[in-house]
Amino acid sequence: MTRHVDQDYAQIRHLLLKMGGLVEEGLVAAIKSLQERDPQLAHDVIRGDRAVDDIEKKIDEEVLTIMARHQPAAIDLRFLVAVMKITTNLERIGDLAANISRSARRLSNEAPLELPIDIPRLAREVRLMVDESLNALVHQSAEEAMAVWKKDDDVDAQHREIYDQLVDCMAADPGNVRRAQQLLHIARNLERVADHATNIAEYVIYYVQGRDIRHLATDYDGGKVNASEGEN
Amino acid sequence: MTRHVDQDYAQIRHLLLKMGGLVEEGLVAAIKSLQERDPQLAHDVIRGDRAVDDIEKKIDEEVLTIMARHQPAAIDLRFLVAVMKITTNLERIGDLAANISRSARRLSNEAPLELPIDIPRLAREVRLMVDESLNALVHQSAEEAMAVWKKDDDVDAQHREIYDQLVDCMAADPGNVRRAQQLLHIARNLERVADHATNIAEYVIYYVQGRDIRHLATDYDGGKVNASEGEN
Repeated sequence: MTRHVDQDYAQIRHLLLKMGGLVEEGLVAAIKSLQERDPQLAHDVIRGDRAVDDIEKKIDEEVLTIMARHQPAAIDLRFLVAVMKITTNLERIGDLAANISRSARRLSNEAPLELPIDIPRLAREVRLMVDESLNALVHQSAEEAMAVWKKDDDVDAQHREIYDQLVDCMAADPGNVRRAQQLLHIARNLERVADHATNIAEYVIYYVQGRDIRHLATDYDGGKVNASEGEN
Repeated sequence: MTRHVDQDYAQIRHLLLKMGGLVEEGLVAAIKSLQERDPQLAHDVIRGDRAVDDIEKKIDEEVLTIMARHQPAAIDLRFLVAVMKITTNLERIGDLAANISRSARRLSNEAPLELPIDIPRLAREVRLMVDESLNALVHQSAEEAMAVWKKDDDVDAQHREIYDQLVDCMAADPGNVRRAQQLLHIARNLERVADHATNIAEYVIYYVQGRDIRHLATDYDGGKVNASEGEN
């Protein structure tokens, strides 16, 4: 009986990491499609998001089955709830990678906009946050999750800087508006990916420590504002 | 014992509707702060979002307590899972209303941009979707939920139209860029509110019918594409 439970939990962990891997691959390919101006790769990311959606449904169903079958204890329930909240966030990251690819595909048809904005740097940092939030989950490490959580402020600051530069560039030359709009869209989607990685980190902490640090805003550690995307 | 269970479920329903009411109020006030150029009201919405965040945590904890205490049967588990997914979506609508208020507050300091774009119409339709998704939940009506789900395409179309008009307006006059950017932000946030109302409707259907229609995209009824926000 215990072995059966363990197998079910192992299966959930396996599916969750598989979903995380798919989402990360999609994000990396989305950024690559932008940097290499590769519309075919962008197209592949958009199509590939379907697999992420499918695996989310599968994990949620598995969780429900376990809950009904094993009547889990409080700590296991906490894990299962965290899993369902994490799948929701991973699924959204998949959507955002597809959004980035749509913008990349549009931009690949136009002359590049030569600007000193550093979207690749933002993308690297955001991707690292996703990677580290999943590692924190694997290692069940609240410490690692907290490190992800703290990085979100820096991403927000980078996003604001890019936003200001792009708005200036649109105001300077109307010919830039459409392309700058796509770049704004990409930067905003990256910033939202970071928000979801932060949410995942919060659920890891919730599971590991039984603490709930969602919505702490500036109460925690001085610098945190959750709804940063509204600042623009 | 049964009475105890019933009381717990009644408490969850009560909290969920209270949360829905708060979120709807915030959305209505956010739109009003934009239309009446009222920075104080915008400020109130931003502060009020805290109450929404608190109630989300409270509901999630109640759900966990019920799961641990009563070892619910499959249909009840389905309800509890739907509740947790719905709170996540309501909480995001609260954030989006706060975002809209931030843009409204910024715009209230600037001369109005005279444009034929119809944000109030979009806002009315989106607000109705939120209202109807909560009604579908109260009535446990898959039919009502499906009606909400079908409206999302029209909202996406309205959003695209507004987007095109605003991009044209920025390209026509660089002096419009900053204000148009705030209006774009508001329209996009409204469109995302509609996405979350659609998600709530999907979870109502999932609970009522045991069907899972998330991510059906174009397979269902011909017109549905989920990641519409990426289309711009």
